[in-house]
Amino acid sequence: MAIKMYDLAGADPNRRFSPYCWRIKLALKHKGLEFDTIPWRFVEKAVIAPYQSERVPVIVDNGRGVADSWRIAHYLEDTYRERQSLFGGERGSALARFYNQWTDVSLQGAIAPIVVGDILKHLDPGDRDYFRKSREARLGMKLEALIAARDSHLSTLHRVLEPLRQTLAAQPYLGGGTPLYPDFIVFGAFQWARSVSDVRLVEAPDPINEWRQRMLDAFDGFARSAPGYW
Amino acid sequence: MAIKMYDLAGADPNRRFSPYCWRIKLALKHKGLEFDTIPWRFVEKAVIAPYQSERVPVIVDNGRGVADSWRIAHYLEDTYRERQSLFGGERGSALARFYNQWTDVSLQGAIAPIVVGDILKHLDPGDRDYFRKSREARLGMKLEALIAARDSHLSTLHRVLEPLRQTLAAQPYLGGGTPLYPDFIVFGAFQWARSVSDVRLVEAPDPINEWRQRMLDAFDGFARSAPGYW
Repeated sequence: MAIKMYDLAGADPNRRFSPYCWRIKLALKHKGLEFDTIPWRFVEKAVIAPYQSERVPVIVDNGRGVADSWRIAHYLEDTYRERQSLFGGERGSALARFYNQWTDVSLQGAIAPIVVGDILKHLDPGDRDYFRKSREARLGMKLEALIAARDSHLSTLHRVLEPLRQTLAAQPYLGGGTPLYPDFIVFGAFQWARSVSDVRLVEAPDPINEWRQRMLDAFDGFARSAPGYW
Repeated sequence: MAIKMYDLAGADPNRRFSPYCWRIKLALKHKGLEFDTIPWRFVEKAVIAPYQSERVPVIVDNGRGVADSWRIAHYLEDTYRERQSLFGGERGSALARFYNQWTDVSLQGAIAPIVVGDILKHLDPGDRDYFRKSREARLGMKLEALIAARDSHLSTLHRVLEPLRQTLAAQPYLGGGTPLYPDFIVFGAFQWARSVSDVRLVEAPDPINEWRQRMLDAFDGFARSAPGYW
Protein backbone atom coordinates (compact mmCIF):
# COMPACT_ATOMS: atom_id res chain seq x y z
CA MET A 1 0.00 0.00 0.00
CA ALA A 2 1.33 3.43 -0.94
CA ILE A 3 2.55 5.74 1.83
CA LYS A 4 0.13 8.60 2.57
CA MET A 5 1.57 12.07 3.17
CA TYR A 6 -0.17 15.24 4.37
CA ASP A 7 1.27 18.07 2.28
CA LEU A 8 0.68 21.80 2.83
CA ALA A 9 -1.36 23.30 -0.07
CA GLY A 10 -2.51 26.76 -1.13
CA ALA A 11 -5.89 27.90 -2.44
CA ASP A 12 -4.93 25.86 -5.52
CA PRO A 13 -4.67 22.34 -4.05
CA ASN A 14 -1.83 21.59 -6.47
CA ARG A 15 0.36 24.40 -5.14
CA ARG A 16 2.49 22.66 -2.50
CA PHE A 17 4.87 25.08 -0.87
CA SER A 18 6.09 23.69 2.46
CA PRO A 19 9.91 23.36 2.38
CA TYR A 20 9.70 20.57 4.98
CA CYS A 21 7.23 18.62 2.83
CA TRP A 22 9.52 19.01 -0.18
CA ARG A 23 12.37 17.44 1.80
CA ILE A 24 10.26 14.36 2.39
CA LYS A 25 8.72 14.08 -1.09
CA LEU A 26 12.24 14.00 -2.53
CA ALA A 27 13.37 11.54 0.15
CA LEU A 28 10.46 9.24 -0.80
CA LYS A 29 11.43 9.53 -4.48
CA HIS A 30 15.10 8.82 -3.62
CA LYS A 31 13.99 5.65 -1.82
CA GLY A 32 11.80 4.72 -4.80
CA LEU A 33 8.72 4.46 -2.57
CA GLU A 34 5.16 4.92 -3.84
CA PHE A 35 3.26 7.70 -2.10
CA ASP A 36 0.05 9.72 -2.35
CA THR A 37 -0.10 13.27 -1.04
CA ILE A 38 -3.17 14.76 0.60
CA PRO A 39 -3.52 18.54 0.38
CA TRP A 40 -3.64 20.03 3.89
CA ARG A 41 -4.24 23.59 5.13
CA PHE A 42 -2.85 25.32 8.26
CA VAL A 43 -6.28 25.40 9.93
CA GLU A 44 -6.83 21.63 9.57
CA LYS A 45 -5.05 20.79 12.83
CA ALA A 46 -7.75 18.23 13.71
CA VAL A 47 -6.92 16.07 10.67
CA ILE A 48 -3.36 15.40 11.84
CA ALA A 49 -4.01 15.49 15.60
CA PRO A 50 -4.16 11.65 15.73
CA TYR A 51 -0.47 11.68 14.73
CA GLN A 52 0.56 13.97 17.64
CA SER A 53 1.48 16.80 15.32
CA GLU A 54 0.19 20.27 14.54
CA ARG A 55 2.32 20.60 11.43
CA VAL A 56 3.09 18.77 8.22
CA PRO A 57 4.72 16.72 6.86
CA VAL A 58 3.02 13.74 8.43
CA ILE A 59 3.28 10.37 6.72
CA VAL A 60 1.17 7.27 7.32
CA ASP A 61 2.92 4.03 6.40
CA ASN A 62 1.13 0.72 7.00
CA GLY A 63 -1.13 2.45 9.53
CA ARG A 64 1.77 4.02 11.43
CA GLY A 65 1.91 7.82 11.55
CA VAL A 66 5.25 9.65 11.66
CA ALA A 67 5.57 13.44 11.98
CA ASP A 68 8.45 15.95 11.62
CA SER A 69 10.68 15.93 8.55
CA TRP A 70 13.90 14.97 10.37
CA ARG A 71 12.16 12.05 12.11
CA ILE A 72 10.44 10.95 8.90
CA ALA A 73 13.73 10.91 6.98
CA HIS A 74 15.26 8.67 9.65
CA TYR A 75 12.16 6.48 9.75
CA LEU A 76 12.45 5.96 5.98
CA GLU A 77 16.18 5.24 6.22
CA ASP A 78 15.70 2.70 9.02
CA THR A 79 12.57 1.05 7.61
CA TYR A 80 13.79 0.81 4.02
CA ARG A 81 17.47 -0.08 4.64
CA GLU A 82 17.73 -2.17 1.48
CA ARG A 83 17.00 0.86 -0.69
CA GLN A 84 19.41 3.64 -1.68
CA SER A 85 20.67 5.41 1.45
CA LEU A 86 19.55 8.97 2.27
CA PHE A 87 22.55 9.65 4.51
CA GLY A 88 25.40 7.44 3.36
CA GLY A 89 25.79 5.79 6.76
CA GLU A 90 25.79 6.76 10.42
CA ARG A 91 28.44 9.47 10.01
CA GLY A 92 26.53 10.97 7.10
CA SER A 93 23.41 11.04 9.26
CA ALA A 94 25.24 12.95 12.00
CA LEU A 95 26.77 15.35 9.47
CA ALA A 96 23.32 15.97 7.93
CA ARG A 97 21.96 17.60 11.08
CA PHE A 98 23.85 20.87 10.70
CA TYR A 99 22.44 21.17 7.14
CA ASN A 100 18.98 20.77 8.64
CA GLN A 101 19.47 23.47 11.27
CA TRP A 102 21.34 25.82 8.92
CA THR A 103 18.51 25.56 6.39
CA ASP A 104 15.78 26.04 9.03
CA VAL A 105 17.42 29.04 10.67
CA SER A 106 19.86 30.77 8.34
CA LEU A 107 18.68 29.93 4.83
CA GLN A 108 14.90 29.88 5.33
CA GLY A 109 15.26 32.79 7.75
CA ALA A 110 16.85 34.78 4.92
CA ILE A 111 14.32 33.67 2.29
CA ALA A 112 11.20 34.19 4.44
CA PRO A 113 11.10 37.99 4.38
CA ILE A 114 11.50 37.91 0.58
CA VAL A 115 8.63 35.52 -0.16
CA VAL A 116 6.27 35.84 2.79
CA GLY A 117 4.04 38.39 1.06
CA ASP A 118 3.75 36.14 -1.99
CA ILE A 119 2.83 33.17 0.20
CA LEU A 120 -0.12 35.14 1.57
CA LYS A 121 -1.52 35.65 -1.95
CA HIS A 122 -1.53 31.92 -2.65
CA LEU A 123 -3.08 30.76 0.59
CA ASP A 124 -6.51 29.29 0.92
CA PRO A 125 -8.76 32.13 2.20
CA GLY A 126 -9.36 30.17 5.42
CA ASP A 127 -5.59 30.12 6.13
CA ARG A 128 -4.83 33.83 5.59
CA ASP A 129 -5.66 35.16 9.05
CA TYR A 130 -3.74 32.37 10.77
CA PHE A 131 -0.74 32.92 8.53
CA ARG A 132 -0.60 36.70 8.87
CA LYS A 133 -0.91 36.60 12.66
CA SER A 134 1.62 33.78 13.23
CA ARG A 135 4.21 35.16 10.77
CA GLU A 136 3.97 38.77 11.89
CA ALA A 137 4.50 37.57 15.46
CA ARG A 138 7.49 35.41 14.42
CA LEU A 139 9.11 38.06 12.20
CA GLY A 140 8.30 40.96 14.51
CA MET A 141 6.72 43.25 11.89
CA LYS A 142 3.87 43.71 9.42
CA LEU A 143 4.18 41.72 6.20
CA GLU A 144 3.95 44.97 4.21
CA ALA A 145 7.03 46.34 5.98
CA LEU A 146 9.00 43.22 5.00
CA ILE A 147 7.97 43.52 1.37
CA ALA A 148 9.07 47.15 1.26
CA ALA A 149 12.59 46.12 2.35
CA ARG A 150 12.98 43.30 -0.20
CA ASP A 151 16.21 44.56 -1.80
CA SER A 152 18.00 44.62 1.51
CA HIS A 153 16.71 41.09 2.28
CA LEU A 154 18.02 39.89 -1.09
CA SER A 155 21.48 41.21 -0.34
CA THR A 156 21.44 39.45 3.06
CA LEU A 157 20.39 36.23 1.34
CA HIS A 158 23.31 36.46 -1.06
CA ARG A 159 25.73 36.67 1.86
CA VAL A 160 24.08 33.65 3.50
CA LEU A 161 24.30 31.67 0.22
CA GLU A 162 28.04 32.21 -0.38
CA PRO A 163 29.28 29.02 1.40
CA LEU A 164 26.69 26.99 -0.51
CA ARG A 165 27.85 28.60 -3.77
CA GLN A 166 31.50 27.73 -3.08
CA THR A 167 30.57 24.16 -2.17
CA LEU A 168 28.51 23.59 -5.32
CA ALA A 169 31.22 25.19 -7.46
CA ALA A 170 33.50 22.36 -6.29
CA GLN A 171 31.19 19.32 -6.49
CA PRO A 172 27.86 18.51 -8.23
CA TYR A 173 25.84 17.82 -5.07
CA LEU A 174 26.21 18.46 -1.34
CA GLY A 175 26.30 14.65 -1.00
CA GLY A 176 29.09 14.38 -3.61
CA GLY A 177 28.58 12.85 -7.07
CA THR A 178 24.89 12.13 -6.40
CA PRO A 179 22.40 13.72 -3.97
CA LEU A 180 21.86 12.80 -0.33
CA TYR A 181 19.26 14.06 2.14
CA PRO A 182 21.18 17.35 2.75
CA ASP A 183 20.55 18.18 -0.93
CA PHE A 184 16.83 17.65 -0.38
CA ILE A 185 16.87 19.77 2.78
CA VAL A 186 18.48 22.74 1.04
CA PHE A 187 16.58 22.29 -2.22
CA GLY A 188 13.28 22.31 -0.28
CA ALA A 189 13.96 25.94 0.63
CA PHE A 190 14.35 26.91 -3.03
CA GLN A 191 11.28 24.92 -4.03
CA TRP A 192 9.27 26.72 -1.32
CA ALA A 193 10.25 30.07 -2.85
CA ARG A 194 9.67 28.90 -6.44
CA SER A 195 6.17 27.67 -5.68
CA VAL A 196 4.87 31.03 -4.46
CA SER A 197 7.10 33.83 -5.74
CA ASP A 198 8.51 35.03 -9.05
CA VAL A 199 11.59 36.54 -7.34
CA ARG A 200 14.55 34.58 -8.72
CA LEU A 201 16.73 33.97 -5.69
CA VAL A 202 19.58 32.64 -7.84
CA GLU A 203 20.20 33.02 -11.55
CA ALA A 204 22.53 31.51 -14.16
CA PRO A 205 25.53 31.17 -14.13
CA ASP A 206 25.44 30.69 -10.35
CA PRO A 207 26.61 27.16 -9.34
CA ILE A 208 23.63 27.10 -6.94
CA ASN A 209 21.29 27.60 -9.86
CA GLU A 210 23.03 24.89 -11.87
CA TRP A 211 22.61 22.45 -8.96
CA ARG A 212 18.98 23.58 -8.62
CA GLN A 213 18.35 22.78 -12.28
CA ARG A 214 19.74 19.28 -11.72
CA MET A 215 17.44 18.86 -8.73
CA LEU A 216 14.42 20.13 -10.73
CA ASP A 217 15.26 17.53 -13.40
CA ALA A 218 15.70 14.62 -10.96
CA PHE A 219 13.14 11.81 -10.81
CA ASP A 220 11.80 12.63 -14.31
CA GLY A 221 11.33 16.30 -13.51
CA PHE A 222 9.24 15.64 -10.39
CA ALA A 223 9.99 19.00 -8.71
CA ARG A 224 9.88 20.95 -12.00
CA SER A 225 6.38 19.66 -12.80
CA ALA A 226 4.97 21.19 -9.60
CA PRO A 227 3.24 24.59 -9.97
CA GLY A 228 5.88 27.31 -9.60
CA TYR A 229 7.35 30.44 -11.13
CA TRP A 230 10.97 29.86 -12.10
CA MET B 1 60.24 10.64 10.66
CA ALA B 2 57.80 13.11 12.19
CA ILE B 3 55.73 15.30 9.86
CA LYS B 4 56.88 18.93 9.75
CA MET B 5 54.25 21.66 9.75
CA TYR B 6 54.67 25.42 9.24
CA ASP B 7 52.34 27.08 11.76
CA LEU B 8 51.49 30.79 11.94
CA ALA B 9 52.91 32.37 15.12
CA GLY B 10 52.75 35.75 16.84
CA ALA B 11 55.51 37.80 18.47
CA ASP B 12 55.49 35.01 21.07
CA PRO B 13 56.52 31.98 18.98
CA ASN B 14 54.24 29.78 21.12
CA ARG B 15 51.12 31.79 20.26
CA ARG B 16 49.69 29.91 17.26
CA PHE B 17 46.51 31.53 16.02
CA SER B 18 45.77 30.43 12.44
CA PRO B 19 42.36 28.68 12.33
CA TYR B 20 43.51 26.72 9.26
CA CYS B 21 46.60 25.47 11.09
CA TRP B 22 44.43 24.40 14.05
CA ARG B 23 42.28 22.29 11.71
CA ILE B 24 45.38 20.38 10.64
CA LYS B 25 47.02 20.06 14.05
CA LEU B 26 43.84 18.40 15.32
CA ALA B 27 43.60 16.24 12.20
CA LEU B 28 47.18 15.06 12.81
CA LYS B 29 46.31 14.28 16.44
CA HIS B 30 43.14 12.42 15.32
CA LYS B 31 45.27 10.28 13.01
CA GLY B 32 47.75 9.70 15.83
CA LEU B 33 50.64 11.02 13.72
CA GLU B 34 53.81 12.52 15.17
CA PHE B 35 54.49 16.07 14.06
CA ASP B 36 56.72 19.06 14.79
CA THR B 37 55.51 22.58 14.17
CA ILE B 38 57.74 25.38 12.95
CA PRO B 39 56.68 28.92 13.87
CA TRP B 40 56.11 30.98 10.73
CA ARG B 41 55.31 34.67 10.18
CA PHE B 42 53.28 36.31 7.39
CA VAL B 43 56.36 37.96 5.88
CA GLU B 44 58.26 34.66 5.55
CA LYS B 45 56.84 33.85 2.13
CA ALA B 46 60.26 32.68 0.89
CA VAL B 47 60.40 29.85 3.44
CA ILE B 48 57.30 28.11 2.04
CA ALA B 49 57.74 29.15 -1.61
CA PRO B 50 59.30 25.72 -2.43
CA TYR B 51 55.89 24.21 -1.60
CA GLN B 52 53.99 26.45 -4.05
CA SER B 53 52.17 28.26 -1.30
CA GLU B 54 52.09 31.75 0.16
CA ARG B 55 50.10 30.68 3.21
CA VAL B 56 50.18 28.14 5.99
CA PRO B 57 49.47 25.41 6.89
CA VAL B 58 52.09 23.63 4.85
CA ILE B 59 53.18 20.14 5.89
CA VAL B 60 56.24 18.22 4.80
CA ASP B 61 55.86 14.46 5.05
CA ASN B 62 58.71 12.21 3.91
CA GLY B 63 60.09 15.07 1.81
CA ARG B 64 56.75 15.78 0.14
CA GLY B 65 55.19 19.23 0.72
CA VAL B 66 51.43 19.68 0.82
CA ALA B 67 49.70 23.07 1.23
CA ASP B 68 46.12 24.22 1.94
CA SER B 69 44.17 22.80 4.87
CA TRP B 70 41.47 21.06 2.79
CA ARG B 71 44.10 19.39 0.60
CA ILE B 72 46.23 18.43 3.60
CA ALA B 73 43.25 16.81 5.36
CA HIS B 74 42.57 14.69 2.27
CA TYR B 75 46.25 13.88 1.88
CA LEU B 76 46.33 12.58 5.46
CA GLU B 77 43.11 10.59 4.97
CA ASP B 78 44.40 8.98 1.75
CA THR B 79 47.96 8.39 2.94
CA TYR B 80 47.05 7.04 6.39
CA ARG B 81 43.95 4.99 5.49
CA GLU B 82 44.58 2.40 8.19
CA ARG B 83 44.22 5.01 10.91
CA GLN B 84 40.99 6.46 12.31
CA SER B 85 39.06 8.21 9.51
CA LEU B 86 38.75 11.99 9.40
CA PHE B 87 35.64 11.92 7.23
CA GLY B 88 33.83 8.62 7.85
CA GLY B 89 33.97 7.65 4.17
CA GLU B 90 33.47 9.21 0.75
CA ARG B 91 30.03 10.62 1.57
CA GLY B 92 31.34 12.14 4.78
CA SER B 93 34.15 13.75 2.80
CA ALA B 94 31.63 15.32 0.38
CA LEU B 95 29.43 16.48 3.27
CA ALA B 96 32.46 18.02 5.02
CA ARG B 97 33.00 20.58 2.26
CA PHE B 98 30.05 22.80 3.19
CA TYR B 99 31.35 22.94 6.79
CA ASN B 100 34.68 24.14 5.37
CA GLN B 101 33.12 26.89 3.26
CA TRP B 102 30.59 27.90 5.94
CA THR B 103 33.42 28.24 8.47
CA ASP B 104 35.69 30.18 6.09
CA VAL B 105 32.99 32.60 4.97
CA SER B 106 30.17 32.85 7.49
CA LEU B 107 31.70 31.88 10.83
CA GLN B 108 35.22 33.32 10.46
CA GLY B 109 33.70 36.28 8.62
CA ALA B 110 31.59 36.98 11.71
CA ILE B 111 34.46 36.42 14.18
CA ALA B 112 37.08 38.45 12.25
CA PRO B 113 35.77 41.95 13.04
CA ILE B 114 35.57 41.01 16.74
CA VAL B 115 39.15 39.75 17.13
CA VAL B 116 41.12 41.45 14.37
CA GLY B 117 42.28 44.29 16.61
CA ASP B 118 43.50 41.80 19.21
CA ILE B 119 45.38 39.85 16.54
CA LEU B 120 47.34 42.99 15.66
CA LYS B 121 48.58 43.32 19.25
CA HIS B 122 49.99 39.80 19.26
CA LEU B 123 51.75 39.93 15.91
CA ASP B 124 55.46 39.92 15.45
CA PRO B 125 56.46 43.56 14.80
CA GLY B 126 57.59 42.60 11.30
CA ASP B 127 54.11 41.31 10.46
CA ARG B 128 52.05 44.29 11.65
CA ASP B 129 52.21 46.46 8.53
CA TYR B 130 51.40 43.53 6.25
CA PHE B 131 48.49 42.49 8.46
CA ARG B 132 46.95 45.94 8.80
CA LYS B 133 47.15 46.66 5.08
CA SER B 134 45.81 43.29 3.90
CA ARG B 135 42.99 43.10 6.48
CA GLU B 136 41.85 46.69 6.06
CA ALA B 137 41.66 46.07 2.30
CA ARG B 138 39.72 42.81 2.81
CA LEU B 139 37.31 44.20 5.41
CA GLY B 140 36.91 47.57 3.73
CA MET B 141 37.62 49.75 6.77
CA LYS B 142 40.17 50.78 9.40
CA LEU B 143 40.74 48.24 12.19
CA GLU B 144 39.83 50.92 14.74
CA ALA B 145 36.38 51.33 13.15
CA LEU B 146 35.77 47.59 13.47
CA ILE B 147 36.76 47.57 17.13
CA ALA B 148 34.37 50.44 17.86
CA ALA B 149 31.44 48.40 16.48
CA ARG B 150 32.24 45.23 18.47
CA ASP B 151 28.82 44.86 20.12
CA SER B 152 27.01 44.87 16.82
CA HIS B 153 29.48 42.29 15.47
CA LEU B 154 28.83 40.06 18.51
CA SER B 155 25.12 40.12 17.88
CA THR B 156 25.67 39.18 14.22
CA LEU B 157 27.92 36.32 15.36
CA HIS B 158 25.19 35.00 17.64
CA ARG B 159 22.77 34.84 14.73
CA VAL B 160 25.36 33.01 12.62
CA LEU B 161 26.01 30.52 15.46
CA GLU B 162 22.37 29.51 16.02
CA PRO B 163 22.33 26.48 13.63
CA LEU B 164 25.55 25.23 15.22
CA ARG B 165 24.01 25.67 18.68
CA GLN B 166 20.91 23.65 17.72
CA THR B 167 23.05 20.92 16.19
CA LEU B 168 25.29 20.57 19.24
CA ALA B 169 22.26 20.62 21.55
CA ALA B 170 21.15 17.42 19.78
CA GLN B 171 24.42 15.47 19.50
CA PRO B 172 27.86 15.64 21.17
CA TYR B 173 29.89 16.35 18.02
CA LEU B 174 29.18 17.49 14.46
CA GLY B 175 30.48 14.06 13.41
CA GLY B 176 28.08 12.30 15.84
CA GLY B 177 29.25 10.45 18.96
CA THR B 178 32.92 11.28 18.30
CA PRO B 179 34.56 14.10 16.31
CA LEU B 180 35.27 14.15 12.58
CA TYR B 181 37.13 16.71 10.49
CA PRO B 182 34.11 19.10 10.44
CA ASP B 183 34.52 19.41 14.23
CA PHE B 184 38.16 20.40 13.72
CA ILE B 185 37.21 22.92 11.01
CA VAL B 186 34.68 24.70 13.22
CA PHE B 187 36.73 24.39 16.40
CA GLY B 188 39.70 25.99 14.61
CA ALA B 189 37.69 29.22 14.37
CA PHE B 190 37.11 29.28 18.14
CA GLN B 191 40.73 28.41 18.84
CA TRP B 192 41.84 31.30 16.60
CA ALA B 193 39.74 33.71 18.70
CA ARG B 194 40.84 32.17 22.02
CA SER B 195 44.52 32.49 21.18
CA VAL B 196 44.44 36.26 20.64
CA SER B 197 41.37 37.75 22.35
CA ASP B 198 39.74 37.71 25.78
CA VAL B 199 36.27 38.25 24.27
CA ARG B 200 34.29 35.11 25.15
CA LEU B 201 32.40 34.32 21.98
CA VAL B 202 30.31 31.64 23.74
CA GLU B 203 29.71 31.08 27.43
CA ALA B 204 28.21 28.35 29.62
CA PRO B 205 25.56 26.93 29.42
CA ASP B 206 25.67 27.23 25.61
CA PRO B 207 25.88 23.78 23.92
CA ILE B 208 28.56 25.27 21.67
CA ASN B 209 30.67 26.05 24.71
CA GLU B 210 30.12 22.56 26.12
CA TRP B 211 31.31 21.06 22.83
CA ARG B 212 34.25 23.47 22.82
CA GLN B 213 35.26 22.31 26.30
CA ARG B 214 35.25 18.69 25.05
CA MET B 215 37.43 19.73 22.13
CA LEU B 216 39.83 21.63 24.43
CA ASP B 217 40.11 18.46 26.54
CA ALA B 218 40.70 16.11 23.60
CA PHE B 219 44.12 14.53 23.03
CA ASP B 220 45.16 15.12 26.65
CA GLY B 221 44.21 18.79 26.55
CA PHE B 222 46.30 19.54 23.45
CA ALA B 223 44.30 22.64 22.40
CA ARG B 224 43.80 23.83 25.99
CA SER B 225 47.53 23.81 26.67
CA ALA B 226 48.18 26.33 23.87
CA PRO B 227 48.53 29.99 24.94
CA GLY B 228 45.07 31.56 24.98
CA TYR B 229 42.60 33.59 27.00
CA TRP B 230 39.46 31.51 27.72
